[in-house]
Amino acid sequence: MKYRICLFLALTAGLFADHAQAQKASWIWYPGDFDIYMSNVMQNRRTERGSFFPVFWKMDSHYVLVDFHKEFILSQPEEVKLYVEGTYNVKIDGQAISGFPKTIQIPAGKHKLSLKVYNQAHVPAIFVQGKTVVSDETWLSTFEDKEWIDASGKTSDKSGTTFVSAGSWNFADPLMVPSAFKLPVIPHFAVKTEKIGKGTLSDFGKQTFGFIKVHGLRGKGKMGIYYGESREEALSTDKCETLDYLELDLSGKKDSVMPLSKAFRYVNTQYEGTVAADSISMLYEYAPVTDKGSFKSSDEELNKIYDVAKYTFRLNTREFFIDGGKRDRWIWSGDAYQSYLMNYYSFFDAETVKRTLWAQRGKDPVTAHINTIMDYSFYWFLGIYDYYKFTGDQKFVQDIYPRMQSLMTYIDGRRNKSGLLEWMPGDWIFIDWADKLSKEGEVSFEQLLYARSLETMSLCAKLANDKQGAERYGQQASELRKKIFDLYWSPRKQALVHSRINGRPTENITRYANMFGIFFDYFNADQKQSVKKNVLLNDNISKITTPYMRFYELEALCVMGEQSYVMKEMKNYWGGMLKLGATSFWEEYNPGKKGAEHLAMYGRPFGKSLCHAWGASPVYLLGRYYLGVQPVTPGYETYTIEPNLGGLAWMEGKVPTKNGDIEVYCSKKEIKVRSAVGVGKLRVKSKSRPVVSGAEVTRISKETYEITIQKGKDYRVKYSPLKGD
Amino acid sequence: MKYRICLFLALTAGLFADHAQAQKASWIWYPGDFDIYMSNVMQNRRTERGSFFPVFWKMDSHYVLVDFHKEFILSQPEEVKLYVEGTYNVKIDGQAISGFPKTIQIPAGKHKLSLKVYNQAHVPAIFVQGKTVVSDETWLSTFEDKEWIDASGKTSDKSGTTFVSAGSWNFADPLMVPSAFKLPVIPHFAVKTEKIGKGTLSDFGKQTFGFIKVHGLRGKGKMGIYYGESREEALSTDKCETLDYLELDLSGKKDSVMPLSKAFRYVNTQYEGTVAADSISMLYEYAPVTDKGSFKSSDEELNKIYDVAKYTFRLNTREFFIDGGKRDRWIWSGDAYQSYLMNYYSFFDAETVKRTLWAQRGKDPVTAHINTIMDYSFYWFLGIYDYYKFTGDQKFVQDIYPRMQSLMTYIDGRRNKSGLLEWMPGDWIFIDWADKLSKEGEVSFEQLLYARSLETMSLCAKLANDKQGAERYGQQASELRKKIFDLYWSPRKQALVHSRINGRPTENITRYANMFGIFFDYFNADQKQSVKKNVLLNDNISKITTPYMRFYELEALCVMGEQSYVMKEMKNYWGGMLKLGATSFWEEYNPGKKGAEHLAMYGRPFGKSLCHAWGASPVYLLGRYYLGVQPVTPGYETYTIEPNLGGLAWMEGKVPTKNGDIEVYCSKKEIKVRSAVGVGKLRVKSKSRPVVSGAEVTRISKETYEITIQKGKDYRVKYSPLKGD
Repeated sequence: MKYRICLFLALTAGLFADHAQAQKASWIWYPGDFDIYMSNVMQNRRTERGSFFPVFWKMDSHYVLVDFHKEFILSQPEEVKLYVEGTYNVKIDGQAISGFPKTIQIPAGKHKLSLKVYNQAHVPAIFVQGKTVVSDETWLSTFEDKEWIDASGKTSDKSGTTFVSAGSWNFADPLMVPSAFKLPVIPHFAVKTEKIGKGTLSDFGKQTFGFIKVHGLRGKGKMGIYYGESREEALSTDKCETLDYLELDLSGKKDSVMPLSKAFRYVNTQYEGTVAADSISMLYEYAPVTDKGSFKSSDEELNKIYDVAKYTFRLNTREFFIDGGKRDRWIWSGDAYQSYLMNYYSFFDAETVKRTLWAQRGKDPVTAHINTIMDYSFYWFLGIYDYYKFTGDQKFVQDIYPRMQSLMTYIDGRRNKSGLLEWMPGDWIFIDWADKLSKEGEVSFEQLLYARSLETMSLCAKLANDKQGAERYGQQASELRKKIFDLYWSPRKQALVHSRINGRPTENITRYANMFGIFFDYFNADQKQSVKKNVLLNDNISKITTPYMRFYELEALCVMGEQSYVMKEMKNYWGGMLKLGATSFWEEYNPGKKGAEHLAMYGRPFGKSLCHAWGASPVYLLGRYYLGVQPVTPGYETYTIEPNLGGLAWMEGKVPTKNGDIEVYCSKKEIKVRSAVGVGKLRVKSKSRPVVSGAEVTRISKETYEITIQKGKDYRVKYSPLKGD
Repeated sequence: MKYRICLFLALTAGLFADHAQAQKASWIWYPGDFDIYMSNVMQNRRTERGSFFPVFWKMDSHYVLVDFHKEFILSQPEEVKLYVEGTYNVKIDGQAISGFPKTIQIPAGKHKLSLKVYNQAHVPAIFVQGKTVVSDETWLSTFEDKEWIDASGKTSDKSGTTFVSAGSWNFADPLMVPSAFKLPVIPHFAVKTEKIGKGTLSDFGKQTFGFIKVHGLRGKGKMGIYYGESREEALSTDKCETLDYLELDLSGKKDSVMPLSKAFRYVNTQYEGTVAADSISMLYEYAPVTDKGSFKSSDEELNKIYDVAKYTFRLNTREFFIDGGKRDRWIWSGDAYQSYLMNYYSFFDAETVKRTLWAQRGKDPVTAHINTIMDYSFYWFLGIYDYYKFTGDQKFVQDIYPRMQSLMTYIDGRRNKSGLLEWMPGDWIFIDWADKLSKEGEVSFEQLLYARSLETMSLCAKLANDKQGAERYGQQASELRKKIFDLYWSPRKQALVHSRINGRPTENITRYANMFGIFFDYFNADQKQSVKKNVLLNDNISKITTPYMRFYELEALCVMGEQSYVMKEMKNYWGGMLKLGATSFWEEYNPGKKGAEHLAMYGRPFGKSLCHAWGASPVYLLGRYYLGVQPVTPGYETYTIEPNLGGLAWMEGKVPTKNGDIEVYCSKKEIKVRSAVGVGKLRVKSKSRPVVSGAEVTRISKETYEITIQKGKDYRVKYSPLKGD
């Protein structure tokens, strides 16, 4: 009995064999499974005042038993090393090899190599390393191989198994099993310390994220570590949101690293009994994404806003895109959707987008909206098409399309008699954090997102070669769009009303549906202008106080060409936080509040996250609407550059793509462009025809000109800006 | 970083606290989850010649994050101990307690205690032990608690969470975490050993199951352990089905237990190099079920058949009801269905039935038939209603009803244009192991099981208070039954034909649908008689060679009153195996084969299982159709006893129920009955009116009389048997 564990030890034995030169092999698993597994690990690191605080939606699991195979044609016999995380078997051409082989010989010729792996605790994964036989995303995988035999031993030839190409995070080290994955850390030190009570307050100089390390810990008694995003929070031992309590009885001195990483700027260490320590430091924990996008301008405050925004975004870019580091550190779909867009203008890390999309969706059956929030299901659909637009990665759309279908089937099944969505048990209608925001009845904002999601389904169905689906979803989308305008457009108010209750439109106008209608391009030209005037620029309409919805509000205004107005808003709003000493941007900012009021939320004095991904939207807005770069066809095969100074004297920056950067400089006299990818159109508004050497200038309308940008070439365009630009 | 593991250590810390007197508390989890988890553990113990051999269908997982709660009203404050398998939090009235408390204080009054547990590797489970606050199946559980808050911190009051009552295996020891569950073992020793080659052949005297222990193992080199259900198999080192290879380099002597239990009678240990051992023994591994049913008669061969059948059944009753111990050791639904019936006449272990039913069904979504076999999906439905009939446990039906619905939805979705089921990619049409058994087209047997399953759905829908479902499934069932007779009943052949191909009935008559039609009571009286004559007792219809289908064939004949004929068949068939030296009954027995031919199957010389649960059907047949006991209303509230000697001079035995046994003795002169439960009807066929003191005798038809049996009373009935009985 005591040896029962041997089988499960055998599973990792292969991992410690020596390994020759690696050669493009990668750990692989069933697609989406490691993403789901790792998101469980990450999201379950939340604590609230020392109490474990997991998510309230369904957490899914990886498939515990997965079959991998690939056919190879070998010109000569090959020795192949196998590394497996799980209990496994190996078959060559369907013939099992005894035991848990670490090295196998595959003869020359055409052969099918299969590994079947069981792992309940971690994701079944394999790493196969031969000269030509290597594991990668070209392998096929399934969670039910349906290979039965008849009484004579003949294997069924009509199994009907569905195979899908394997998933991977490009883990290229065979000795690093996927479950051991951790973000890297580097030591950081406090910039200032002061004696407080029976301990020390350490200031790390700015918002940060990592593990506290206590040096020279000793004695008997207790130690409390109180984390603060603000000084006030760290000092409030009974109200700070996160903490560590240690009970100690140490004979000597030791260094001790806390088990969970935390978000903080200040750390208050307090001792009881004889406990003491020499000092604390931190292990800064970060995702190793590369800073590819940039922005710099004549306005130093704006530059600071951009830098702090990108730092905010970096801190919240982890195994996945999270909301904020102090409190939830969860994957919220609405928050992540904005992170995707920021990412395309900063790190351009496609992997983190894919991971986050897999993790959010989890497994079938769908039993609730994503994060239980109706609007958050819709952002998930939108994020997938955006991903395709920015990367051109059709394979991912095909991989995830079945889970798009099942989520949409769930949503379609919740329509009311009018074909609209309204609250049902289990739904959270979020929209935004705002007092007195009605969620009752059929909210126009949700229908708008629903229509956009159906359009997205239609586009993705095409990419996944589901022609019928493309047509059906397209039809459903256009019917819903028509219905939205029939039911919610108020000819009198010249805007979309907020909702219908008991089948009747309310009189209430809010910004949400109206601003999304702008950049969804759902309005005609007249409607756009009236929405801009009657809603967006109307101070009588309830103001937005979260950077979350300011993202879309400012985007809508930029789409309407209001870059100068938006520039002032950005400087006021994000500049306002900087003036209050922010070193990262917040979950919510209401300029009307004062002092410690800014720290409170959710009825708790330090409930608010002072480092929230959705606070970082200038990263997106400046790249997308000032540098003015965006893809036209997927993966930047074609793209446009429409620089807009918005009142700046000059600006310059880079917008990354998967194949290199698009560099833009713009002053009131000239525009310089250099691109590593595709074919671009530079659109310039100029009183007179711009001058550029080595390219043609085409006039496309009054005072608007277009110049074709070829990759690898420098363009320097002289122009004369219009008044106000 | 190195302390990250602390959080996960904390999870088990509570387990080692001292615990006061236990008091009806039990480990609890989300219902069905431990069953699914443990079935993964058990089913992944299969090996084939040292190679890991997992199932080919989808393995599901437990929910990794589960919330448990219950409301208590305490007359005085209470100290409550908490034991948790997983990372957890504890809330009293929604207020979290910091850390991972092992003991909490609950004040007097009405309070809600909640624990939320995360565990990826094992099933999230809790054990709560106070004076009155204890964990049991009255707790509610959910995998999505949907408890969100608004910006003010107010918890949503309309979450729509679905709670279900917790599951349990009645684990009453807080220090024994569920994942540590193992079947008990006891040492057994070989009855004979002989020198063979460079080692020893050990004979354990009869078929058995357990872990081989090697005593005094020493030296350097290899050891091979070759298992055999037959002597031939153990001696065939290159063809035996299971083995263990050890590579050793030991400095001293040690005892070593093999990691996996195996099924065998013979064990051949062979040594290479300097490896040697003093001896081997085994740790017999068994499910601690109680032998409650019994049967004894005037026929010694029959008694031996009964004993070997029950031993066969015992060996295959493990964590779940498995098929056989040597090879698959999996939960096959068709095999398990027969085990349920045998169980009701032997161990009456309700828990193993429930576990097996949960484990087979797994989680949604349904992506294939159970075990991928169409017929096996249907047996699963039938097993649930049988369970209710024998135990009266309505709660279980209610718990599992949603998964019955989703499986039936899957099946309904696979009907062809004629509303019938035929092979589709992914389906295995099994029916039985038999050469040339056609699986083509619309097989009548599958439609018959489908109809019966729909009837079962209708019955269970009623029990689960789904009135609409009860009506809908009932309607669908009666339509299908009518269609079966319209399409498959051959007026010329006076039997059901085997199939329709391309919309036309074939001429082929097989036993399957016809024998099931008998005990499903689908035929009218004339049809029954013609089926009996034209099919069941017709040697021109292909014979059945597996005990699996003999189960149903003999059952159909017993239903038709052919106990004397069946007795001869039993003695021939099972007696035939005994004459060949069987110490347990086989997967297949064809009296026409000779010698080692009996050991082969699946194209392998020792492929056949010589200890297969479906070989044990006499356990059922003798209790059900000879002692003649069966429930009429659920849980034996009412029941019938119709003894049938089938040619025996006398027989006696016990049939267990959940509340005690029903004891029957029957000779050609008298019948004695004593029952611990319900109200029974003893039906006696007698030429003259039977005589019994203390009870009335009612004549119900010519030569048939009925006596009401009250519990706890002895009845002794004098009667005069009819000719031939």
